[in-house]
Parts: sequence; C-alpha cells; structure tokens
Amino acid sequence: MFKTVRGMRDLLPVDAERMRHAEQVSRTISKLYGYEEIITPVLESYDLLAAKTSEEIRERMYTFKDLGDRKVALRPEFTASVARLVANKLRNEPKPMRLFSVGSLYRYDEPQYGRFREFWQSNYELFGSARPEADAEILILTNDLLKKLGLQNFCFKVGHTGILRGILTQEGLDEAKQNSVRQLLDKKLWTDALVAAREAGVSQKCLDVLESLFETRSEDAFKVLESVKETVLDYESAVAAVENLWKILELVKDSGAQLEVMVEAGFARGLEYYTGIIFESYIPGLDIALGGGGRYDKLIQLFGGEPIPAVGVAQGIDRIVLALKKQKVSPKTAKERSVAVISVKDESMAKALELSDVLRKSGLPVEVAVMGRSISRALADADRRGVAYAVIVGPEELKEEKVALREMKKSKQRTVEISNLTEEILAGSK
Amino acid sequence: MFKTVRGMRDLLPVDAERMRHAEQVSRTISKLYGYEEIITPVLESYDLLAAKTSEEIRERMYTFKDLGDRKVALRPEFTASVARLVANKLRNEPKPMRLFSVGSLYRYDEPQYGRFREFWQSNYELFGSARPEADAEILILTNDLLKKLGLQNFCFKVGHTGILRGILTQEGLDEAKQNSVRQLLDKKLWTDALVAAREAGVSQKCLDVLESLFETRSEDAFKVLESVKETVLDYESAVAAVENLWKILELVKDSGAQLEVMVEAGFARGLEYYTGIIFESYIPGLDIALGGGGRYDKLIQLFGGEPIPAVGVAQGIDRIVLALKKQKVSPKTAKERSVAVISVKDESMAKALELSDVLRKSGLPVEVAVMGRSISRALADADRRGVAYAVIVGPEELKEEKVALREMKKSKQRTVEISNLTEEILAGSK
Repeated sequence: MFKTVRGMRDLLPVDAERMRHAEQVSRTISKLYGYEEIITPVLESYDLLAAKTSEEIRERMYTFKDLGDRKVALRPEFTASVARLVANKLRNEPKPMRLFSVGSLYRYDEPQYGRFREFWQSNYELFGSARPEADAEILILTNDLLKKLGLQNFCFKVGHTGILRGILTQEGLDEAKQNSVRQLLDKKLWTDALVAAREAGVSQKCLDVLESLFETRSEDAFKVLESVKETVLDYESAVAAVENLWKILELVKDSGAQLEVMVEAGFARGLEYYTGIIFESYIPGLDIALGGGGRYDKLIQLFGGEPIPAVGVAQGIDRIVLALKKQKVSPKTAKERSVAVISVKDESMAKALELSDVLRKSGLPVEVAVMGRSISRALADADRRGVAYAVIVGPEELKEEKVALREMKKSKQRTVEISNLTEEILAGSK
Repeated sequence: MFKTVRGMRDLLPVDAERMRHAEQVSRTISKLYGYEEIITPVLESYDLLAAKTSEEIRERMYTFKDLGDRKVALRPEFTASVARLVANKLRNEPKPMRLFSVGSLYRYDEPQYGRFREFWQSNYELFGSARPEADAEILILTNDLLKKLGLQNFCFKVGHTGILRGILTQEGLDEAKQNSVRQLLDKKLWTDALVAAREAGVSQKCLDVLESLFETRSEDAFKVLESVKETVLDYESAVAAVENLWKILELVKDSGAQLEVMVEAGFARGLEYYTGIIFESYIPGLDIALGGGGRYDKLIQLFGGEPIPAVGVAQGIDRIVLALKKQKVSPKTAKERSVAVISVKDESMAKALELSDVLRKSGLPVEVAVMGRSISRALADADRRGVAYAVIVGPEELKEEKVALREMKKSKQRTVEISNLTEEILAGSK
C-alpha cells in the first residue's frame, strides 16, 4: 500500500475546507485593503532561495537538479520570490505597491505540532512607504483578518529592531556581532545574550540598559514605551526607534482598531533583514505564532533592486487552522441548504437531472442519487450525509408536474408543484 | 539579477486574478454538485507516482531524493494521489464518493503555447457508480463549469473505449497489442493504427470495420451512434459500449443540458486506464483541450484498492485562462467600487484609517494613501490606479463631522457627512 512521504499530509474534506476557508478570507482581506495577488512558482533557482535566507532554513530546503541540470529548490518562504519580482519585473511600478501571495512552502523540518514539511502561508507586503501609517495598516489588516476568521482573544507581541540596533551600533558593534546577540534573544536566552554583548565589548552602562530592557514588557503599550525611552535615553537612534513605534501604535489606537498589544523591548524575530517594527500574533493556549511580520527597508536592495521601504506580514495558514480548531470555530458548510435528488425509476432520471440543474441555478448544492438504489436506501444515504432536503422524482407525480419534497430532519414529506420547488426549498432553508 | 527557472512562470496581478477566478468557479461548481475537496501533497513518493502513469510522463517527472534519502517526485497529475487516498484512507467511506481537488502539477515538458512546467488543474471524480447517470453528471458538470466561467461555443469530443476494446478483444489481441493500436489513434495516426492492427493479426473484416469507424464522426450524436452500431454489429461488447454511450448522451440531452457533442468513434485518450466513455472539451480556434475525462473502473484496483467504478474529469486551469483571454472574458474586478482614502494632514491620519475600516466593513475595497503625498499627487495616483472614489479627510471638515467625496471619473467633488459616507458610495457604485 502506498503512503504519503514522511512529513507530508493529506487534508481530508473537513480539514481541506478549513484550509480553503482561511485562504479565502485571506484573499478577501487582500482585496479589501488593495493588495494585488501575484503567483510565483513553487520551484525557484537554488541561488535565489539561498541568497538571503538564514543558514538554518537553507540547510533544510528541498534542493535538487532538474533534468536540465539546473540547481533548483522548493521555496521555503515567499520572501525571495517576491523580492525577485519587486527588484525586476515590478521595479517600475508606481508606489505604493501592495502585493498579496498565498501558497505552499517546503522545509525539511522535524515534523511536530504546528510544523509540517509542506505548509501554507498568506503574505501581505506594502512597498514604497516608510511612514508609520504603512506599518499601522499592516497591523490593522492582520487584526481584521484574525477577526474575520472568527478567532477570539488573539494578541500581538510587538517590538522594534531599531532599539537594540541603535544601542549596539552606538556601542561600536558590527553587524555580525549584533546578529549573534539578536539570535540569542530570538531564542529567549536573555542571560546568554547579555554575556554575548559583554564579550563583544559593550560598556557596563549598555549592559545595564539591556538588562533593564529585557525585563520590560507590559500590556500597557504606551507606559512601557515611556519607560523604555527613559532607559535608552543616551542612545539617540534607539530613542528614535521608540518614537517610531509609539507613533505607529498611536495611529492604530486612534483609528479605533482594538488591538491587544504586548510591547516587548527585548523581542527579536529570527530574520535579520528587519529594520523597524516587528510583531507576531498569538491566541491563548497555542504557543506558536499565527503569523508575524515587520518592516524590512533594505530587503529589495539585498536582491539587487533599488532601495524600497517595505513592511509586511506572513500568516501561517496551518497555524490559523489549528487556532480555529482550538477555538472550535467552524466555517459554515453548504450542507444546511443541500438537496438530494432521487429518481424513482430509470425513466425519470433525465427529469431528475433537469431539476438538479434548476436548483443549482439558485445556488443550492445538489447531490443526484447515482447508485440505482431503492428510494428508502437512497433516503437513508442522504440522511447519513446530512443533506437537508430530498426531492423524489417519480413518473406518477411527474404526470402532474409534481415531485415529493422531504425535509430530512423532520422526516416530513409532501407533494409540491415543480414550478414551486426551488422557492419552497429556499424558503425552508432560510 | 535573479530569474525564474526555465519553464516556470510568475503570474502578475491580471493573470493571477484570472487563475484564481477559474479556480474559484471550479470550487463553486464542486460545492453545487456535492464534490468534497481534498488536498494532497505536491511531493509524493516516486514509486506511487511512477506506478501507473505512462512512460512519457514518468520520464518527465521532477524526481529527486529528499534529505532522508527517500526517492520522491513532484506530482505530474492528481490521479495517483487520489487513487492512493481512495484505496487507503477513504476505502471505507460510503459510496457514492464525490471528490474535488485543485492545485499545481509539474512536468519537465518542452515549454510551448498552453504547456508549462508548472501548471494547474481542477479534478472532479465520482466513485462508486457504474451507472450512466454518473457519466452524464460529469459531462453536465463540465458543461456547467465552462458556461459559468463565461466561455462560449465550446464543444465536447466524445468517444467510448469499449468500442475499440470490444473489437480487438474479440479478435484475440492482448492488452499490450491493443495499447499499441490505441497509442497510434491517440496521435491521430489512423493509417498507422490500421497497419498495427493488421500486424497484430486481426481479420480483414476487422480492418474494414476499423477503417469505417475511424472515418465516422458527426455532430449528430445519435445518428453517428446508430451507424457505428451497425458497423460493429458482429462484436458483442462493442455494441454494448455503443449502447452505453447512447444511454449517457440521451440522459444528458433529455435533462435539457445543451451540450454541443461531436462523437468520434476512433477517439482514444492517452491514458490506458479508461474503461468507458472518454471526452475532451474545446473552444474554436484553440487546438488544445481545456479538459478531459472519462470512466476508469479499474484504476483503484491498480493502486491496490478494492475495485470501485469511477468516472471523472480534469480541467486544465491554465488552458481555461487561455480560453478566457481568447474570448476576451474578464472576471469582474473590485476596482469599480474601490475607494482611495487620503488624509490631508498627519493629524487626520488616524481618522482616515478609522473611516477606511468603516468602508471595508461594507465590503468596499479601500486603499489608504500612505506615501505622505500632497492631495493633488495622491489624487493623480488614485486616478492612475483606476479607483472609483476618493475620500479626502481634512482637519477642517472633520470638525463638522464631514469629509470630501470625489467621484474620480467625473472629477466631481462634494462635502458629505461622515455618517452618510458609506451609503453615498454604495449608492453611487451600484
């Protein structure tokens, strides 16, 4: 017997429906916010995908040579593909440019809860604006998406890469040394990060500032920002970063969008290319982020393009599905209005097909009985499938332009004129 | 500068929109006909994908070893994955079982018009019924799909594998010899097929019958079937095949579904596992099939499952997109109702974001101006994007709870109460 490859999944109807629902809501949001969809290939050149990603991801890519001896890989994230487009084909498009992408990604990670070797993401990216309203839009959009999906009590963990970068730059640390500190923070190894900073040669004052920052987190965003500003007062560009984050969060708050925000001054997201705000979204009881993003003004340059400010967010669709399950949110299914059409005899089958077409034209989902079963067995089957109505088409009733209509749940059956059939079902299934 | 890998494509917004439209209409049809969606992985074991496909496809698969040294490949078609599911995880599901799948497939073909190395298909498969109403449903569904997409003048080329198989089996040809004849027919090499049949040892009578069949095609389906039946009268199971096809097409016709059908007695589709009706759909002026399908009652058995009768169809989404372009069918875009929201000053930006949220709640697509441009430049940008309305939010008007509403096409601007804003835009964009 054949099986799926280790780490790969089949999504059976209930799970597939949740996945497509999350994808479709993501797309609806993209349209409401003016993000135009692009579709890039799953297969890209290895050089592109490996260029600017972390070593961790690079080593876990599905890499191989195609039949033309090209070194290729399955995309582990959208970043490189979108950057390739923005740096090349889309480079002359007027700004702002809002792009949306959704699809499957591939990483050879150890399979575990919420982590799969084939997984789905939706991505929103806003290119061209360095202003705080662009950052605010990405936060508001993410909030709107999670709300529209039906999730509750989600919150945002928010930070700003400029705070740490401002301090460490002023202390004279180069990019590599800064990254080693940031990587430890990303893993929440606060003490190790302090040790690394000390070894990199920062001042005692700096260590005190960092220690104080790492302890600073609060749900009162503006209170914590005030205290952080006080702490980093001697580091000019760190202060500017705090003020930028303040401005963004103020815009979000004053717009009336009710985001639950937790500011964490020592928050560091894995990817090194972030240059401004960074954030992740969570629901209670699920330890993995549903999505995350931030500002990355230098990314396109890294891929050979003109410098373009950019801010964006990636949503983990599989994680959203986990969250929907956890909070027991079900997408509405079509079953509530669905109809089984059953022909009593072969001679009434064409009429059964015709009536099915009429019902579908009114948007009703119809399953035609195609097994040649007796009426009672066909009804039992329709019942088991959770169908709402059965239409029984028999030669006798047809002579009078009538059929039998059965409400499955009530087991109530009556004869109705064919000309009234759609109307009766639509009225009953409201 | 980085590029896409040869044979891979980026779909920019206009093309991506067509693709997603075709996908979405396919999904709508699946729900209307009771086909439940399943999602299988892009990456499958090589052994599964290679098991029952043609040599031609097998040699052009993207095959490689994953980091766990498993021989894997990118799926070149849905068949094997769906068969794997039906033979295993879904084997105990009650029948009929209607399944829908849509996604990307991969073949290392020479890139040419309508043929890409990454391409999309939607698949509908009905398992469990050997009855003609099941075949009829697949034809009606395909017709409905193409109609709903907005295509016109499409037609169906229809045949039945049982005709040729019935003749050749009665003539004593084994499966391999039958396939060699069928492959030549699939390439429309009629004369070569006759030579192959002669060399395989069929009788002169059989050659006459075949020659006459290969010439038989007509848009009058029932006339041609009558003539074919006459021709194959000495071959019992060929006659049964003609009668089966007759019954299916009669059901379709009597159901009122208006399919343009061209019956071709010598029609052979590439895949060897078809056992009954086969068909392809075309539009005038496009030489490649938009989709195709048929009955394949022995397929699941080939994958180690219980025998289950099955009929299905695969739609080439890329080809449908080509057809939509050719017939100049455009999906409705959201632009007709879209709104640009422009803040006059930084201090009114939060209010601009708030109003954007209100408009989106009514389903209006909103692009917020995030570039900090002057009003006139922001309006010029909105105009260039084809936005229908601009809402200009300024501190002065805000004091009176008003904003400026501009109809972009008419260049007409007026001041409106914020409380009436949504209504005015909705009324105007009807």
